[in-house]
Order: sequence, then structure tokens, then C-alpha cells
Amino acid sequence: MSQLHVNLGPRSYDIAFGQGLLAGAAEFFEARTKANHLLLITDDNVEERYAIPLADACTEHGFEADVLVVAPGEQTKCADIAAQLWQTMIDEGCDRQSAVVAVGGGVVGDLAGFVAATFARGLNFFQVPTTLLAQVDSSVGGKVGINLIGAKNMVGAFWQPQGVLIDVDVLDTLPEREYRAGLAEVVKYGVILDAEFFAYLEQHIEAINARDKQTLLHIIRRSCELKAQVVEADELELTGIRAALNYGHTFGHALEAATNYERLLHGEAVAIGMMGAARLAVALGRMPADFTPRQEGLLTALGLPTATPADLDPDELWKLMWHDKKVRDGEIRFVLPSRIGAVEVVSGVTTDQVLQAWSH
Amino acid sequence: MSQLHVNLGPRSYDIAFGQGLLAGAAEFFEARTKANHLLLITDDNVEERYAIPLADACTEHGFEADVLVVAPGEQTKCADIAAQLWQTMIDEGCDRQSAVVAVGGGVVGDLAGFVAATFARGLNFFQVPTTLLAQVDSSVGGKVGINLIGAKNMVGAFWQPQGVLIDVDVLDTLPEREYRAGLAEVVKYGVILDAEFFAYLEQHIEAINARDKQTLLHIIRRSCELKAQVVEADELELTGIRAALNYGHTFGHALEAATNYERLLHGEAVAIGMMGAARLAVALGRMPADFTPRQEGLLTALGLPTATPADLDPDELWKLMWHDKKVRDGEIRFVLPSRIGAVEVVSGVTTDQVLQAWSH
Repeated sequence: MSQLHVNLGPRSYDIAFGQGLLAGAAEFFEARTKANHLLLITDDNVEERYAIPLADACTEHGFEADVLVVAPGEQTKCADIAAQLWQTMIDEGCDRQSAVVAVGGGVVGDLAGFVAATFARGLNFFQVPTTLLAQVDSSVGGKVGINLIGAKNMVGAFWQPQGVLIDVDVLDTLPEREYRAGLAEVVKYGVILDAEFFAYLEQHIEAINARDKQTLLHIIRRSCELKAQVVEADELELTGIRAALNYGHTFGHALEAATNYERLLHGEAVAIGMMGAARLAVALGRMPADFTPRQEGLLTALGLPTATPADLDPDELWKLMWHDKKVRDGEIRFVLPSRIGAVEVVSGVTTDQVLQAWSH
Repeated sequence: MSQLHVNLGPRSYDIAFGQGLLAGAAEFFEARTKANHLLLITDDNVEERYAIPLADACTEHGFEADVLVVAPGEQTKCADIAAQLWQTMIDEGCDRQSAVVAVGGGVVGDLAGFVAATFARGLNFFQVPTTLLAQVDSSVGGKVGINLIGAKNMVGAFWQPQGVLIDVDVLDTLPEREYRAGLAEVVKYGVILDAEFFAYLEQHIEAINARDKQTLLHIIRRSCELKAQVVEADELELTGIRAALNYGHTFGHALEAATNYERLLHGEAVAIGMMGAARLAVALGRMPADFTPRQEGLLTALGLPTATPADLDPDELWKLMWHDKKVRDGEIRFVLPSRIGAVEVVSGVTTDQVLQAWSH
């Protein structure tokens, strides 16, 4: 097991990486909370395989542990389900001595985190991410929340966990498409922050596609290190530094909205979105022309889509980009690379330039 | 106008006190937020008299301003209404450049504050309290939230406003019973923190009952100063210092629950609850016997109830006390005076002692 300390002053916490870590989860929790009651929130996908055994181990260790199960999928991340969870927590006897443990992917982590942030004005919280996307992205950084109709992640909080437990063994059972979608965020970290890491990914395609454990441990840990650096510099998204993490996401969110969050996984939309951002960066003269095929080559080798679906209308996508939370003062700001490993926030982009970036 | 600075580091803010302050509210907001859009949340009681004119003044001053109206009453402070407000905010075009302004009493302030704390992971927030209770208590300190079924204030956040505007002129239109209920929290501050203030109240009964403006300005400002001292020492309720504010509330919350939050106003329940706590303190030998009639004399002179309603069963009230958020490790902790102006948190109280305190 290796650990990464995320340094956020009084809200600092550890991320543990390793194989077989779930077996030692109760000790990990015990060292980081005074809670005597753990409320595990999970979904049908991983309830039996991971959440129930985890709850049993916690009970054996002396915790009181309950498991609440939600339906998998983005539509679960809504106000109705949050309200149901709050009320169920009352019935389960939750109080300030309870801690919430999210066992699942990004939906479960975001929803459970929001419930933890708000119940009794804030409970201790742990993340046990079971998808690659959650391990490298959503479980790190403290953003929790739910969707409104037509507005993803619009309600939420910054609520840091007491700890994150990343067991790569849980990826054994992750469906192929979900696994590949998680790799999109991994590639993103290379583009925005670390050229060496980008090259490492290019050089280890085979091991990554084979889910080699040591390779996985390296890329997950490096992704978390890079994200933690950004979060440490701008925990509450006040300085603009944290916006770097949004590379590919302004394009990606529009793709998700245009397809009603049903056709593309978040990581797939981000992969296509990064291609839009890359083309825009090249068109603006910010990147050399060979960057686009290089990024496309890596994404394709990792089994990710890179082309804007032919049935989606660039004009419609352009309109949807304006619904993003980050739109400010009537103009869209794009996170674009200035070289591999560095990005800038760019405004003043024209409609035509964006339409071109969608189209090619 | 006088101002009190609440010192909470990066979350510091000013409370302004005066007459006719609403007229200058737009300037007060402008000096404290970069938001260009104000969302006023109010209720039917004060919409026409205060919220609409305030919104109009803000519009004239160059803000975009919208007014959302909720029904008055505790039942509005629930997850359903919060979800409706969130969704309406999307339709009104709220984004991170919006600030929420609560115009109303405690219900509106708590609900609007919760919505502000969670929309887009937190918007700027102002309080314009229009009841005495909200002016001396709920608008100061950053506790915001909603009720669950059977659990008051169980979901929420600590979310400090950018400023609080206390205009005593709005109390002119406050119904008598609401006004008196607010005085219960004023008396509380005297008991828990300031013997001199307690004596001042005893000496100014007539002026208080006549709502004399200068007297009101003094007692409201002193109440806010005392509350701010406590909040500054324990913003997040971590050290136990903030528990002092709960004097009379463990008894009071049980009274509210027993009467289904319909028969007693919060301040009335607190007044009766302070009598329970006083009798308990005397029975435990912590206070001299003459404290109970002295506190009762002041509360009665201010038109507040002091006797446990005869139809309520002490055994039932005792059970309801166990539902309080502050119950910890299986025992109830009482905030009891050790002299006028100082309280301690006391545990180890027996069932019989509490039943006796309810009964007399």
C-alpha cells in the first residue's frame, strides 16, 4: 500500500493505493474518524460484491454498519433520491457519530458525499471508488453534488473526505467500456499537467489495456497526485487554477447534454471533447498541428471514441456549451493546451472557430 | 447606522443596525459581493411590504433582481421546497454571479441560506431579517438548513452570509406574539453570557414592550454581539462552546415536537424550556433558589409563557428530548447556568430530575 497526503490544512486527508485494501478498510476508517456508526451508500452494481463484505468486515471490527442501496446511473443523482436518503438516515438512527462511506462509482460518490455534507450539517465521509473514473477523478477533490433537470452537478458542496481507499483489485470486475471511459481522464492529466506522463501512457498502451496491476497503480496514483496538486492550489475553485481540470469538458458536457446523458459515458464525451479542444488550440495557433493526431492516437489506442457523432449538429452543440456552469460574463472560456503538460484559459473565441472545432 | 464585524477569518462579515436601512440595501450588497444578479427569497407575509420594494430599489441601483415567494411557516423549510427553489433558480438563470437575499424570518433565512449554500456549490448570501427572532438569533451565525420529517434542522450547512442588514423599522409591522417570542432569545443571552444585560432587560420592560426604537437597537445589537462572540469561538460547533446557545432548547425542542410545531412559537417553547432548565439547575444545587422566580418574572413581564402546558405528559416530553441532534453517547447534555451570565454543559442528570424540572 502507498499513500498520498492531500494537503488542505484542516481538511487534509490520505488517499491509499494498493491491492486487496478492502480487507483492511475498517482499520483505515477507524484511524480517521471518531464515528462509531458507518453508513455505506452503494448501488446494485457493487452491493453484493464489495459493499456487503465491506460492511460485514466493519461490523466484525466493532463498527455499527448499515448499507443503503441506490439504483445505478446518473438519474439517481437527484434531489428526490437525496431527500429519500436523508429521511432513511433518520430512520437508521444516524447522528453526528455516523460517517458516510461511498462504495461505487462517480454517481454514488457524488450523491453520498452531498448527503454527508448536509446531514446534521456535515458528517465524516470516506470514498471507496470502484470505477477507474472515480478512482482517478471524482473521488479526489471534494466536489460532491446532485443534478437538477437540465443542469448537471448544479447543487452541491465542497466537502472533503476523511480518506479515500483505492483498491485496484476492484477494477477486475469493471466492464470494459467503463474502464476505457476512465482512461480519458487519465489522458487529460497528461495533456494539462505532465508531458512525461502523457509519454508514459503512449509507451504502455498494452499494459494499460491488459489492466496490468502495477501499471494501473502507477497511472492511478500519478493521476491522483496531479489532481491533488490542482485541488491544493484552488480547493474552492476561486482562483481559476482548478479550471485546468476542465480540459475537454466544455465540449464534453455539450455532448452529454445533446445525447441526454444516455449514449455516451462521461469519459467518452470527455475524449471527444478533448479532440474538439485540441482542434481549437491548433486553429488558434496555440499548438502545433501534430498535436491533434498525437492525442487522437493515444485515445484511439486506449479504445476511446474521438469523432463528434455525425448525427449531432454543431450549432446545437454550440448552444449547449452556453449552459455550462463555467460560462461567465456572457462569454465561454476554454481550457486549451499551450504545450503538452500546460494549459491556459482562453476567452474571445469566435462562434465560427468553435463550430469548426466540432466539425473536423 | 452602526455596524458589528463578525470575525471569522475568510468568512468574516458585517451586521448593520439602524432605522430606515432597507433604503440603502443595494449599496450594502454592492459593497460586499461581485454578483450582478440578486435572488430575493421571501414569504407571503413580507413580500409586498418589504421584498418587492427592496427588489425594485436593487433594480434601480443596477442589479438584476428576482423575487421568489414561499408560503410562511415551518412546513416550508423542507426538502421539497428546497428542490423547487433550486429548479426555479435554473429557470431564472441563476449562476455563480447570482447572490441570494433572504427577506423574512427564521424559516426564510434558514431555507434561503441552505439553497445559497448548495446551489452551484455555494452562492453569496445576505440576510435581511424581518422578525425579532431572526434579527437576534437565526440570521447570525451561519447555521442554515431544512427540516426532515420528525427532525428539525437535520439537513443543512454552516454557510456565513456576506452581510446582515438589520432594520428595526421592519419590526413596526411584526405581530405582537411574534415580537414577544423573539424576546425569549434576548433573555437567553442575558442568562448565558451577560448578567448586566439581564439586569438591563429587567430595568427596561416598559420601553421593550413599547418597541422603543433606541431600546430595540440596543438589545438587538447586544444580542448579536453576544451571539457573535460565541460563533467566533466555535463556528462549526466543534469545541462545545457553541452549545451554550442551546440554553432552554433541549426542553424547548421537546415542547415544539410534542405540540407538532403548531401550538407554540419557537421563542415561546424556549421561554418555557428556560424555566425547565432553571428548575433543573436549582435542583442540582447549581443556582440559588431565587433564580427561578427572577427569570420567570422577566419572561412574564415580557409577555412570554413560562409554565409547561398542563396537557403535556412529562414522560412523553422526556422521550422527545432524546431525539435532539445534541444527544451524544447515549446521554443528554443540558446547558445550565452556574450564575447569571455563565453556563456549563452538564451530563449525568437522572430521569427523575428531568421529570421534576418539567413538572413544577
